[in-house]
Amino acid sequence: MEIYPIYAGGEFVTTNHKLNVINSFDGEIFAQTYLADAFVLEKAILAAENALPIMKALPSCEKYTILMEIASEMKCNENHLAELLAMEACKPIKYALAEIGRAVQTIIVAAEESKRLQGEYMSIDWTAAGKGKEGWVKYFPVGLVAGIAPFNFPINLAVHKIAPAIASRCSIILKPASSTPLSTLEFAKIVDKTSLPKGALSILPMDRNAGNQLVTDERFKLLTFTGSPEVGWKMKNDAGKKKVVLELGGNAGVIITKTANIDVAVAKCVVGGFAYSGQVCIHAQRMYVHIDIFEEFTQKFTEAVKLLKQGNPLDMQTDISAMIDENNAIRVEEWVSEAVNSGAKIICGGNRNGAFYPPTVLTDTHKDMKVCALEVFGPVVTLEPYHNFNDAVEFVNDSRFGLQAGVFTNEISEMNQAFSLLEVGGVIINDVPTFRVDHAPYGGIKDSGLGREGVKYAIQDMMEAKILIKPM
Amino acid sequence: MEIYPIYAGGEFVTTNHKLNVINSFDGEIFAQTYLADAFVLEKAILAAENALPIMKALPSCEKYTILMEIASEMKCNENHLAELLAMEACKPIKYALAEIGRAVQTIIVAAEESKRLQGEYMSIDWTAAGKGKEGWVKYFPVGLVAGIAPFNFPINLAVHKIAPAIASRCSIILKPASSTPLSTLEFAKIVDKTSLPKGALSILPMDRNAGNQLVTDERFKLLTFTGSPEVGWKMKNDAGKKKVVLELGGNAGVIITKTANIDVAVAKCVVGGFAYSGQVCIHAQRMYVHIDIFEEFTQKFTEAVKLLKQGNPLDMQTDISAMIDENNAIRVEEWVSEAVNSGAKIICGGNRNGAFYPPTVLTDTHKDMKVCALEVFGPVVTLEPYHNFNDAVEFVNDSRFGLQAGVFTNEISEMNQAFSLLEVGGVIINDVPTFRVDHAPYGGIKDSGLGREGVKYAIQDMMEAKILIKPM
Amino acid sequence: MEIYPIYAGGEFVTTNHKLNVINSFDGEIFAQTYLADAFVLEKAILAAENALPIMKALPSCEKYTILMEIASEMKCNENHLAELLAMEACKPIKYALAEIGRAVQTIIVAAEESKRLQGEYMSIDWTAAGKGKEGWVKYFPVGLVAGIAPFNFPINLAVHKIAPAIASRCSIILKPASSTPLSTLEFAKIVDKTSLPKGALSILPMDRNAGNQLVTDERFKLLTFTGSPEVGWKMKNDAGKKKVVLELGGNAGVIITKTANIDVAVAKCVVGGFAYSGQVCIHAQRMYVHIDIFEEFTQKFTEAVKLLKQGNPLDMQTDISAMIDENNAIRVEEWVSEAVNSGAKIICGGNRNGAFYPPTVLTDTHKDMKVCALEVFGPVVTLEPYHNFNDAVEFVNDSRFGLQAGVFTNEISEMNQAFSLLEVGGVIINDVPTFRVDHAPYGGIKDSGLGREGVKYAIQDMMEAKILIKPM
Amino acid sequence: MEIYPIYAGGEFVTTNHKLNVINSFDGEIFAQTYLADAFVLEKAILAAENALPIMKALPSCEKYTILMEIASEMKCNENHLAELLAMEACKPIKYALAEIGRAVQTIIVAAEESKRLQGEYMSIDWTAAGKGKEGWVKYFPVGLVAGIAPFNFPINLAVHKIAPAIASRCSIILKPASSTPLSTLEFAKIVDKTSLPKGALSILPMDRNAGNQLVTDERFKLLTFTGSPEVGWKMKNDAGKKKVVLELGGNAGVIITKTANIDVAVAKCVVGGFAYSGQVCIHAQRMYVHIDIFEEFTQKFTEAVKLLKQGNPLDMQTDISAMIDENNAIRVEEWVSEAVNSGAKIICGGNRNGAFYPPTVLTDTHKDMKVCALEVFGPVVTLEPYHNFNDAVEFVNDSRFGLQAGVFTNEISEMNQAFSLLEVGGVIINDVPTFRVDHAPYGGIKDSGLGREGVKYAIQDMMEAKILIKPM
Repeated sequence: MEIYPIYAGGEFVTTNHKLNVINSFDGEIFAQTYLADAFVLEKAILAAENALPIMKALPSCEKYTILMEIASEMKCNENHLAELLAMEACKPIKYALAEIGRAVQTIIVAAEESKRLQGEYMSIDWTAAGKGKEGWVKYFPVGLVAGIAPFNFPINLAVHKIAPAIASRCSIILKPASSTPLSTLEFAKIVDKTSLPKGALSILPMDRNAGNQLVTDERFKLLTFTGSPEVGWKMKNDAGKKKVVLELGGNAGVIITKTANIDVAVAKCVVGGFAYSGQVCIHAQRMYVHIDIFEEFTQKFTEAVKLLKQGNPLDMQTDISAMIDENNAIRVEEWVSEAVNSGAKIICGGNRNGAFYPPTVLTDTHKDMKVCALEVFGPVVTLEPYHNFNDAVEFVNDSRFGLQAGVFTNEISEMNQAFSLLEVGGVIINDVPTFRVDHAPYGGIKDSGLGREGVKYAIQDMMEAKILIKPM
Repeated sequence: MEIYPIYAGGEFVTTNHKLNVINSFDGEIFAQTYLADAFVLEKAILAAENALPIMKALPSCEKYTILMEIASEMKCNENHLAELLAMEACKPIKYALAEIGRAVQTIIVAAEESKRLQGEYMSIDWTAAGKGKEGWVKYFPVGLVAGIAPFNFPINLAVHKIAPAIASRCSIILKPASSTPLSTLEFAKIVDKTSLPKGALSILPMDRNAGNQLVTDERFKLLTFTGSPEVGWKMKNDAGKKKVVLELGGNAGVIITKTANIDVAVAKCVVGGFAYSGQVCIHAQRMYVHIDIFEEFTQKFTEAVKLLKQGNPLDMQTDISAMIDENNAIRVEEWVSEAVNSGAKIICGGNRNGAFYPPTVLTDTHKDMKVCALEVFGPVVTLEPYHNFNDAVEFVNDSRFGLQAGVFTNEISEMNQAFSLLEVGGVIINDVPTFRVDHAPYGGIKDSGLGREGVKYAIQDMMEAKILIKPM
Repeated sequence: MEIYPIYAGGEFVTTNHKLNVINSFDGEIFAQTYLADAFVLEKAILAAENALPIMKALPSCEKYTILMEIASEMKCNENHLAELLAMEACKPIKYALAEIGRAVQTIIVAAEESKRLQGEYMSIDWTAAGKGKEGWVKYFPVGLVAGIAPFNFPINLAVHKIAPAIASRCSIILKPASSTPLSTLEFAKIVDKTSLPKGALSILPMDRNAGNQLVTDERFKLLTFTGSPEVGWKMKNDAGKKKVVLELGGNAGVIITKTANIDVAVAKCVVGGFAYSGQVCIHAQRMYVHIDIFEEFTQKFTEAVKLLKQGNPLDMQTDISAMIDENNAIRVEEWVSEAVNSGAKIICGGNRNGAFYPPTVLTDTHKDMKVCALEVFGPVVTLEPYHNFNDAVEFVNDSRFGLQAGVFTNEISEMNQAFSLLEVGGVIINDVPTFRVDHAPYGGIKDSGLGREGVKYAIQDMMEAKILIKPM
Repeated sequence: MEIYPIYAGGEFVTTNHKLNVINSFDGEIFAQTYLADAFVLEKAILAAENALPIMKALPSCEKYTILMEIASEMKCNENHLAELLAMEACKPIKYALAEIGRAVQTIIVAAEESKRLQGEYMSIDWTAAGKGKEGWVKYFPVGLVAGIAPFNFPINLAVHKIAPAIASRCSIILKPASSTPLSTLEFAKIVDKTSLPKGALSILPMDRNAGNQLVTDERFKLLTFTGSPEVGWKMKNDAGKKKVVLELGGNAGVIITKTANIDVAVAKCVVGGFAYSGQVCIHAQRMYVHIDIFEEFTQKFTEAVKLLKQGNPLDMQTDISAMIDENNAIRVEEWVSEAVNSGAKIICGGNRNGAFYPPTVLTDTHKDMKVCALEVFGPVVTLEPYHNFNDAVEFVNDSRFGLQAGVFTNEISEMNQAFSLLEVGGVIINDVPTFRVDHAPYGGIKDSGLGREGVKYAIQDMMEAKILIKPM
């Protein structure tokens, strides 16, 4: 069994707190690593602070080179990284490979953006008080960043915090999810070989106390968290003076109108609904289909869902594997039961087997059922008909959450209405809400989060504007 | 009869070359002004050059104040200005008033933009050669500008050159059309009362030699011309080292699809086709209607056209008056005859009366007829059916010109196709190509022009980038 | 004695909680108004929420018109508003008039920016996953805003929240300081006459409970607070899910180098140090002067300080009047005593008379004294020599705060060093840190705040990005 | 002797017109290629037009991949390419290698920018006429581009046209200088192996007729020329309707003030004055040194110049080799003679030996001498003292040209004055005018050119704005 030391202040270290890593497909402990305690965290913080002036002085060309080297090395190791990721996260290998590809892209984009840090000229003489002066605004690194990444995209969502930190010349301490620490620790080995100043990056699974300190310690100037709404909003209140960015989840809706291409919509909805067992922030959870095509869509969709191949995450044919752990499968089972007991109908799926939960389609649901109202974060979708587009928009909006929404339509007026009225951070036309490219702004409103990620946007959060007002 | 001196280098002067101004509604000479000769032009050029350093040093707040004072004073005098414009251009007073309103808006936008002259920060250390350096780009006035305005929007299209010149701290000498010099000369009186440095603006109707000098004299750093394609493209070759912006005409097309709201489309097409007798660069000249609605559209459109009220430009009820002169009416008559002789059918209109030409609708036209192929610049439109959208796009594109196009549709795919494929500077969804707001980029490709106007864009043309590369 | 009703949900109302307004120059209660209680606040919140869809649908031209009408009406009433402000804030009338002028400018800038709400195009096909798609980002109003304004610039700092809210189509409930509610309530009368949707603005002095609700009520989506660091940072922790912008204070430093123009520096430092008795967030509190010119600067500065005319705020000759209340004067007296007891020397000033505290210059201070370490918010400055520029930068940085800093120098290397290393939001070359223009980004780091104001920047905070990803 | 076919419409072809390529260091013909005639050019044009729709549909990810592959392959072949370049251009190998490095960087920047083609959102409802509409501006490829590159940077200045063309989805036909065609033809082999659509790039040395056709043929929509002022300005008049960008030369000035670091200034001025025998558009030709340091500077500069090692371009130790041909060396000799005959003094250098001209420093020159007034494009600099900074700025400005200028100073006021008043496209503080990084805007005013290059700026010139105005 392989043992992974953790990465603190530029060194790979161990602690007294071992952490087992389990492949939930077979329940086997296949690797071990360590939880950072207060001592290791302090070491990382001091190293990170020492690295700050070195980072601040890093020329653009060196930042760029470091990031491109990391991307290149990851690309070379994509199979190894993907296997590790597939096992720790129980993520089908084809999706694991896709995630590595996206992480590489995220880093390349950060490399490019690192040369394009914004700045602006501003005439100051708009009133007589400013005569003879001009202003130049530059952006400076915010300082030390605390990053917390979730289990579902362990490498790409960690990289969405690490790469912008390097690009913006910040130091960062990243805490991966305790269930999925390996791919980021393997990533740390890649980073460690570059000339990134030691201490600028630490990757530390943490015990509860150390994790809390990421939130409360005032030496961190920014906390960027991706994870569950409950945890995220609690952190915001405990975060003291630091800036907070929260990328939380949702119960994303998708609308399939009469002018949709049904076959395209079906194909995309199957992926949006069941990729990685729905353990995706922008999982297409609630589907609203125009009444005229509801029957056709339902039939085609169900057929396609039934074709999904369940299996070992390391098998390239596998579409869906076990959930992250049995507890989550049990929770999903309970939510589906609650729905059925309140009148919902199971179209397909519905029988848990240990940590496996099959792709499940429900209808006749009600907005108060947990499978509708909360983030199901499992392979369950609801399918409901609507009569007019206004209603469908209201159905999607009738939620605590607002991350992304998909609309299959060919009508300009519906596109406009969706873009104007859907209470989300992103509206995807002719695709599922699950669509995301890593350079675009991404994030939610309402309970789905605070702020935006997407490389350029994350970089902005990691910088502070400073204006120079000078004679001209 | 009122006599208008011309405005040269901050003074109102006269010359030996009198210029009569005629109201073509009744053929009466109702005012006189003067043509600038080489002597007056030289005076204006020297004054403009002397004003350049003063302009360059003008604080933003003073530019803003000057422009806002001009806008405010025009607003106060809108009725007087509109009457003058209505008479010199034979433009129905309601359209003349609208033009004054737009000119006021153009100036306000320039005032606002004058405080927002662009500038950008640029990291320079993308390679080792640039380590330790940073770049700041500012934009400086290009210098002396030559502006030539057309008869059809004598004040707003002049202001589209003058206001950006002030905003960008250039001097400008503006030549109005010889047929419509009065409204700009009246405008000069308003400007003269502000604290704009004397010489920064001259407004001079010109004899041919002086007009040519605007094009060839190397002291002008930019020539901005709005007018006919023939004249414009000739100027480009004679312009020497100066920058050239050309806003020329076209034979704009509009597509009415099956998903259009027909009544809306009809109402807008009547205005786009016949406002100011079609003497508009973005006159909706060629209309392509889906075959399924062709009959309905044609009938409703023709009915609406017949309701247009012909009359005295000073009458608020008048929709259409005489053309700018009888020669143009005769030309239009000849073009229509040519079309009819080649097989076109007149649906309505078609009988010239002196300088009056009635709103005329043709069908069964062919793309080689002058009324299709050339800029008709008169109250004539062609109405043809199409079978599929691809064809309609090709019909619109099958032209030397490419200014704007209108598309009435509610389909996303058609909007995308139109935006991607129509060879024009602007695509207007659910409106006629004639739609323009003065702050947006405006201009054509192919034979329709070179460069873009619209206040912010004109300002950019009037400035030169200068980069400061310095240690950081 | 005039009674001012408060402005709740588009109506002027009264409550059972009267609030006396005192002119601290003579201690007289010269007006009365009311504190909003929970009931009135609820009314305002409901009206604000009802106004949101109306605001969201407001065309740019109507927003612009509303804001320009407000600016114009304020300009017409500047004397009246300034007198009210001078009395409630005990601010010398010349500064009160300047503040009204700035508030007018702030609104005009917001009117202009309201037409320029950002948006951006983004190609989405950076990887194969995005082929055929494009992205458009628009910004939508965040919703209901809670604004809390301080006593020192009661109108301009309120307007810095209200005008961007209108520009971004948000509703806002603004709480003025209890000591200075009148100028904003008078402002409310001006706004009420425009066509701003009723409920979009409420201006409510509040009792403690209602004030707390502004912070904690989740219906507010943004809290924007200008005031003291203690209060501000506490609010951040109580603010729940809403965004928080904090504009707090500091102990701004200014560096006067050998290449400074001493007379200019003296003149500006006197204003920066003593305008409005130093009750200014960017009060020039700590002055560091190169040792070679320390004596000359000290002498000239002291002479100039002694010429400051103390008096009635309504007298145009008055440079400095009473502080906002006697408690604050007593606090300043105690801080100066503490400094003197620890070895500081009073160069001039130092004798309190009721709410009056004279312009006071200290030297031989130490960074741990309250007059150095904390925000003195009174007419006290410290004057210390430095030997080399590095030291001066460190002195300025050796503070919990980081708002703005001033540097008088003609050396490029010093300017660069200052801009790069001073830990502040703004570096002002050849002027005091007190310099601010209302369209530029303004705000601090460290304990001085979170986020930036300045019209365009405040508008950004009041909007949420939404991306439309569509076929192209 | 190697024979290089030329690259027309995606094929390597030969013609009847052989072109010898000479290494002027030893006068040997070391390779042969061909001149394109009208027939080959027509083939290239047709292929380029056919490629346009394919280019227009190229996803960003494919453009990016093509460009990055080219960059990577060039990097792998840098030694071979540099040797070819050194021989054809007689450029010392260390400078040839640097040029290849810059060309690689230019392509990488183009790859990055190709994903960031601009676009902007614009609210349209600034007046009532625009209510309910919004505007989106995108930029589309201009079409077929004609590029003409000079001999002095045969690969990087060609790439400055080719890479932006690919990035902006245009087709381009590039004409290298007849003396230096090989490195670009070798580059063509690299491009040909990528998946760039065939025909999108042709590289063709041309006979005079074909060269003229690049200028006059209306199928080209943009002519981008780098070369001599005489040729460039003539082209502008012959260019018909196409856009024209001219990157011409100058007689760049550099100012060395009293606050300069003299040793740094000397080192940089030697490179700026003599790198590649001064055959550089931004060759530091005229040096103005403050009178107080004139003697010291002159002595140190002359000493350093004398250390320059003359030799074989393929020798890594060589600083300076033969000029591009003997005719140019003779011309330089004549200009120096003219100067000496009019009173100038040779401090060092001055004896021609065939195509070799030694590094030459003149003083006591007069602005009317050719070595001052014209572009010397040879290893000759003038060194003159000045008394005050105003004079130095005037000396630099007293020229037909205005490309870049260098100023060695540590004074903010001098930097400001230089940036504001120097009539050039770029002001370089503490470096020579010869400084250029390939992503920054570059280009001149006055007789030095029209428009700006620098990857992003060249891309902008190769695109046309198109606005979509649609309901919202």
